[in-house]
Amino acid sequence: MIINESYGHGGDVYSHDVLLDFSANVNPLGTPPEVVEAVRRAAGELAAYPDPYCGALREKLAALCGVEKADVLCGNGAAELIFQFAQALRPRRALLPVPSFSEYEAALEAVGCAAEFYPLRRENGFAVTEALLERITPETELVMLCTPNNPTGVCIDWPLLHRILARCRETHSWLLLDECFLDLTDPDSDRSLIPELESGDRVLVLRAFTKLYGMAGARLGYAVCRERDFALEMCRTAQPWNVSTPAQAAGLAALDCTDFVARTKALISEEKQYLMRELRALGVKVLPGKANFLMLSGVPELYEKLLEKKILIRSCANYRGLDAGDCRIAVRTHEENARLIAALREIQNA
Amino acid sequence: MIINESYGHGGDVYSHDVLLDFSANVNPLGTPPEVVEAVRRAAGELAAYPDPYCGALREKLAALCGVEKADVLCGNGAAELIFQFAQALRPRRALLPVPSFSEYEAALEAVGCAAEFYPLRRENGFAVTEALLERITPETELVMLCTPNNPTGVCIDWPLLHRILARCRETHSWLLLDECFLDLTDPDSDRSLIPELESGDRVLVLRAFTKLYGMAGARLGYAVCRERDFALEMCRTAQPWNVSTPAQAAGLAALDCTDFVARTKALISEEKQYLMRELRALGVKVLPGKANFLMLSGVPELYEKLLEKKILIRSCANYRGLDAGDCRIAVRTHEENARLIAALREIQNA
Repeated sequence: MIINESYGHGGDVYSHDVLLDFSANVNPLGTPPEVVEAVRRAAGELAAYPDPYCGALREKLAALCGVEKADVLCGNGAAELIFQFAQALRPRRALLPVPSFSEYEAALEAVGCAAEFYPLRRENGFAVTEALLERITPETELVMLCTPNNPTGVCIDWPLLHRILARCRETHSWLLLDECFLDLTDPDSDRSLIPELESGDRVLVLRAFTKLYGMAGARLGYAVCRERDFALEMCRTAQPWNVSTPAQAAGLAALDCTDFVARTKALISEEKQYLMRELRALGVKVLPGKANFLMLSGVPELYEKLLEKKILIRSCANYRGLDAGDCRIAVRTHEENARLIAALREIQNA
Repeated sequence: MIINESYGHGGDVYSHDVLLDFSANVNPLGTPPEVVEAVRRAAGELAAYPDPYCGALREKLAALCGVEKADVLCGNGAAELIFQFAQALRPRRALLPVPSFSEYEAALEAVGCAAEFYPLRRENGFAVTEALLERITPETELVMLCTPNNPTGVCIDWPLLHRILARCRETHSWLLLDECFLDLTDPDSDRSLIPELESGDRVLVLRAFTKLYGMAGARLGYAVCRERDFALEMCRTAQPWNVSTPAQAAGLAALDCTDFVARTKALISEEKQYLMRELRALGVKVLPGKANFLMLSGVPELYEKLLEKKILIRSCANYRGLDAGDCRIAVRTHEENARLIAALREIQNA
């Protein structure tokens, strides 16, 4: 939680009067009914402490990921795992491409590490390029990557990601790879690094339930780490009961919602095409991202103008390397997307 | 969460085949129906991120505690706040009376601090005595106290607690005071230090919803800290969304359950007398604790023998300064308590 007013993320429907929220990148279909039902049932089991082992959930995740149960860590949202990771590693030197999700930097700051930024360039479409490889040296304790990246939606090229992994193995650098949006990514780019990991690899791959299963409020994320001693160290940075009973129940139910996932992917794919087409027709610059959100550029004041219409988008002004002309919108249902486009048209014609 | 097998707390109904759980100190009346209903309602609002400010909840807690909203921190259970506190302070020297709740030591270890133990002596009934005052010096960065203490149920004498506070002010030492069981404590000993705190005091008072409102599975705790800069620092050690939407809803509903609290206190008081009477009649040594649990001594193998009958109690063998002859039992409903006594009688007669 935060007690000051410096909240710098999307999804702040608590401080704004909002009818439509395009600022948080969660599933436009909301929460699957099976997950809602699982949380309702868990409401009757609150008196007991949650399972500190997250036993059933980790077993299911391990099978899904093709790893052992001891390689799976569950967290109070993937965000908690970022902080646990930083606290267990306590790096002095960490390489962080920017713009990216600001909690990486926050987690490093919390352990007194000033990140070394690697600027993703607008002229390269904010892609990670080969130049990153040279920046990874034996002095690099940690590289923090996000694919698809937030807020750009740009994925790291698969062969390049492999070379980054190989380079990190050479330099004994840790790699934190955030795949939290990968489940909502175009099928040509949604390949996970998890099957490539070997025992002892200094890699933590982060995954979320938040986005795909519309359960941001429940707080559940997980990570795969095949460096056992480090995984144990991460556990020691936090309490044993960090994942609530409702969150564990929600996660177990979510993993069975395969139809829901298929419908979501189809919707995102179709609606992303619709939004890109309409936005471009309106003359708005859209980055061709692979995720369930889009970054727009050259639209200063759009955030304020839409907020007047009670539509919340994510201003990217507080991302390193971006400015007030950049913003991010989630791909929502067709009705919501059409209302956004109509609002944009009104703003242009005003 | 934990991935190894070293879980050393009560409430592990996940690793044992248990019919009756006396090992976790939660309300024997379970969760109030209003709290269950609040979580059920929250199940329909999971798609949005939780309020990172915990706005409504902190406002209500501030009014209840007679402090300002900025003095209240909410956590994913009070246990999370212990770790955040340690991570924000990063003390080199911390004074810790033992036996006590093991997560204090775990949180210190996580930041590389080896606690300086202050042994609470069996011959003093495990009470904190004046001798503690001399151990608090300008080199003492932190004193961690728990009242009533876990697992003994012994409260710190009120005038002595005041002198400890005064001593900490003199030496500029931080005081973490865990009052998580205070709501379930005998009325002659349930006075909170919160009203005594002054702005700038280096004190963190911890409080839980877990025990009183039977919502250990939901994860919600809070702390009062009137040293603003430090409270901000604590927030920076963690993600903004640490308190889930169901937990915030549960907490808000719980604070209205005044009848439930009154009924709980009456039940605990009556049943504690019953248990003490019956246990003593059976020749078992019972520490006259003030909390909703009791520590028994001189009963080696009781844990194992009760577990054979599918009754789980808390062995205190892994508490510093205690041994396998010590164990802790929660005060439960009359029916459960009577079954425990009957089981003990059977064991004695076997």
